[in-house]
Amino acid sequence: MNILITMAYVGTNYHGFQVQKNAVGVCAVLQNAMEKVLGCRPDVKGCSRTDAGVHARQYCVSFHSNTQIPLRKLPLAFNRYLPADIRVKTAQQVPEHFHARYHAAGKEYEYIFLNTAIDNPFFEGRYYRVPYALDVQAMHKAGQHWVGKHNFASFMSAGSDIEDTVRTVQGVSVARSGEQVVFTVSADGFLYNMVRIMAGTLLWVGSGRITQEQAKTILESKNRAAAGETMPAKGLFLNKVFYNEEDTRFVPCK
Amino acid sequence: MNILITMAYVGTNYHGFQVQKNAVGVCAVLQNAMEKVLGCRPDVKGCSRTDAGVHARQYCVSFHSNTQIPLRKLPLAFNRYLPADIRVKTAQQVPEHFHARYHAAGKEYEYIFLNTAIDNPFFEGRYYRVPYALDVQAMHKAGQHWVGKHNFASFMSAGSDIEDTVRTVQGVSVARSGEQVVFTVSADGFLYNMVRIMAGTLLWVGSGRITQEQAKTILESKNRAAAGETMPAKGLFLNKVFYNEEDTRFVPCK
Repeated sequence: MNILITMAYVGTNYHGFQVQKNAVGVCAVLQNAMEKVLGCRPDVKGCSRTDAGVHARQYCVSFHSNTQIPLRKLPLAFNRYLPADIRVKTAQQVPEHFHARYHAAGKEYEYIFLNTAIDNPFFEGRYYRVPYALDVQAMHKAGQHWVGKHNFASFMSAGSDIEDTVRTVQGVSVARSGEQVVFTVSADGFLYNMVRIMAGTLLWVGSGRITQEQAKTILESKNRAAAGETMPAKGLFLNKVFYNEEDTRFVPCK
Repeated sequence: MNILITMAYVGTNYHGFQVQKNAVGVCAVLQNAMEKVLGCRPDVKGCSRTDAGVHARQYCVSFHSNTQIPLRKLPLAFNRYLPADIRVKTAQQVPEHFHARYHAAGKEYEYIFLNTAIDNPFFEGRYYRVPYALDVQAMHKAGQHWVGKHNFASFMSAGSDIEDTVRTVQGVSVARSGEQVVFTVSADGFLYNMVRIMAGTLLWVGSGRITQEQAKTILESKNRAAAGETMPAKGLFLNKVFYNEEDTRFVPCK
């Protein structure tokens, strides 16, 4: 049986999702817990490669198992063996061919700026702090230039082996929420460090270093050097993963 | 010069504010940082004795110092030597006689229930999880019986040497905010464990174990045994401390 689980994790203590040499990835910790519950170590497919320190509010994993444990009991069973910074939230059966990464139709990320003079101990490690005033409206406008199908080469870090840098961004918003300035972006796919470079570019706009119109020029330049810095991973959250309903719907044989 | 600082801290790693034997209190950690900045260890007056594990969004401390460091630079200076779960936010000069605890005119506390089947790793150690449905409206109504000047003996743990158990509760609210059910209460003063026992009583109401009208009967009984359990400290936040403006306003000599 092919199983899709959703989970949330605080990325601070992990080197991303993938199994890493000499570093702890969320994947290995999850597999350790699964092994204790299932009696064998399943091969797991994560929905994306996340960088060290990145957080996930909804991360999806698929794996095959012949477990007799009812699916509704799986989250609690796994959570018993997981550290408190990783929680499995749901489990459902999906079609045999389903793959959490290959079938992901889109994702939503969020980058959090804390716009205060002093750090907030309750969100430590989960934001990038900006002590000066940010022009949130200009940041929001800047992001609108990126909505649509574009070549996002300006927003990809070197070191990626991706050749096709065209992606479709479905939506961008930048909004203030209390002390936070939250940049949210959804797309059919993301290039390496794309959200963090977009965040760095929006920070330029918010601080007045560039105009919101220049966000368009930067996109069109297809030149990584034109865009802002790659912001630290700690402010980045994977919010949601989207699948097409027909890919995840399990129809039992008659 | 008498100085009032406001701070925020995550209480998880501390045995409350007060200096404790064989346990780390926030106060001692603060004094260590102050000593490094000021060159001597000031006697500090905290606004309240908080229990182990209780959090503070705004905790107030007063202390005397002859420091030549400009007050606006003090928060950053102290924060350099404080762990990330304690942050000093502001510093201001106050009249010589001002005392952070004796002059506190009131406080606001919050108790957070996480109303979900699964724990939330992003708020670990900062809520009490309730997996079943809560009648938030009934909880809110129940709390209204406690507003006003009453004898709150039912909501005080044994072991307190307080004799006058009359306090004035200015407001109570219970409201849902996403996955959280938040109980907020402000009063001119609080008895030992008062908020945590109120929270336990409201949990009885929310789960249907007692009616909202019984919250009134419990108050009137002046009997600790009639009220709900003392809820764990981890869900409790000191939100605000109120001072009368004339107590904190510093008027320089002419």
